[in-house]
Amino acid sequence: MHYAKPLARLVGELEKLPGVGPKSAQRLAFHILRASEEEARMLSDSIIDVKTSISMCKICFNFTDQETCDICRDPKRDRSIICVVAEPRDLVAMEKTNEYHGLYHVLQGVISPMEGVGPDQLKIRELVGRLAQGEVREIILATNPTIEGDTTALYISRELRRDLPEAEIKISRIAHGMPVGGDLDYADQATLIQAMQWRREM
Amino acid sequence: MHYAKPLARLVGELEKLPGVGPKSAQRLAFHILRASEEEARMLSDSIIDVKTSISMCKICFNFTDQETCDICRDPKRDRSIICVVAEPRDLVAMEKTNEYHGLYHVLQGVISPMEGVGPDQLKIRELVGRLAQGEVREIILATNPTIEGDTTALYISRELRRDLPEAEIKISRIAHGMPVGGDLDYADQATLIQAMQWRREM
Repeated sequence: MHYAKPLARLVGELEKLPGVGPKSAQRLAFHILRASEEEARMLSDSIIDVKTSISMCKICFNFTDQETCDICRDPKRDRSIICVVAEPRDLVAMEKTNEYHGLYHVLQGVISPMEGVGPDQLKIRELVGRLAQGEVREIILATNPTIEGDTTALYISRELRRDLPEAEIKISRIAHGMPVGGDLDYADQATLIQAMQWRREM
Repeated sequence: MHYAKPLARLVGELEKLPGVGPKSAQRLAFHILRASEEEARMLSDSIIDVKTSISMCKICFNFTDQETCDICRDPKRDRSIICVVAEPRDLVAMEKTNEYHGLYHVLQGVISPMEGVGPDQLKIRELVGRLAQGEVREIILATNPTIEGDTTALYISRELRRDLPEAEIKISRIAHGMPVGGDLDYADQATLIQAMQWRREM
């Protein structure tokens, strides 16, 4: 091999990260070698720290370092509305618009027969539980405008109508103002705001 | 902020890495969060390990986890020829051609008035010291074909002629078969082999 063993090991570990090929792994490793001991330790520690201290919010399944997340604990948030997203990164994208002030529910995925993900693996039962408490007046289904995202939204809307037939909850879907097949995580803020404004009841 | 504190900290640390923007930092952090405890620990440990166990080879200034590097200790290497490169990554690029079987000398940079790097900050004195021992018959100056790389090569060839006037050492420069302004680190192997074969005495 061309590298000393500990260096080859670091390059190998970095290559496992998404979007990091052999070339970038080498560049990152050489950067770390050149960085100060303190900088390397800060990076190393933050990796361990994130694994030990971050868990899922008991209410909405967003990432948090406490029992419940900052958003669920925020008294200024509108508790009558829940925005349902697939992943924590979609929640981050939504928050960046600064246009939404309700609560969230992170499904932790979408229904995908291809990848063997059924409704039971998602946090749908927990969503029904939150809605059964009666405080919520509207849920916005903000899964991606893809086949899986649309299927998941449709599945959830049917489940809610069946499980909570008497509940007066408006169920809406973010408008498909976003390019179909795209990723919520990569949409620009203006498109996301449009999609929120044009939501339609289903 | 949109992230829990330990997560924001990890994203911040990852953003400091070269070529990692806010978006990739977020993707990497979410990947680490999703990875197993063991995988995260392996990455974290390898960062610390590389900092504590990797140092510079006492002879050629390549990275090594011992006193001297694998190449300097390899009895099969031709000790009569030294290839002079700017950075360890250039040595790796050269090794990947499988065409060069001599020793190396890593300058740890190039002369760059713009970045305040003068000849004294490079390992040029150490190179002269190696050549003064009399075993070496040729040195190949394989710095990048850039203004800084060319200047550094020219400076070294003059220094050697002055400091070792009696030494019968052939000083050659890799051919500029590579696109000028390019980076040795990114050249394909065929181009590098060509550049080695077309070296000219200076």
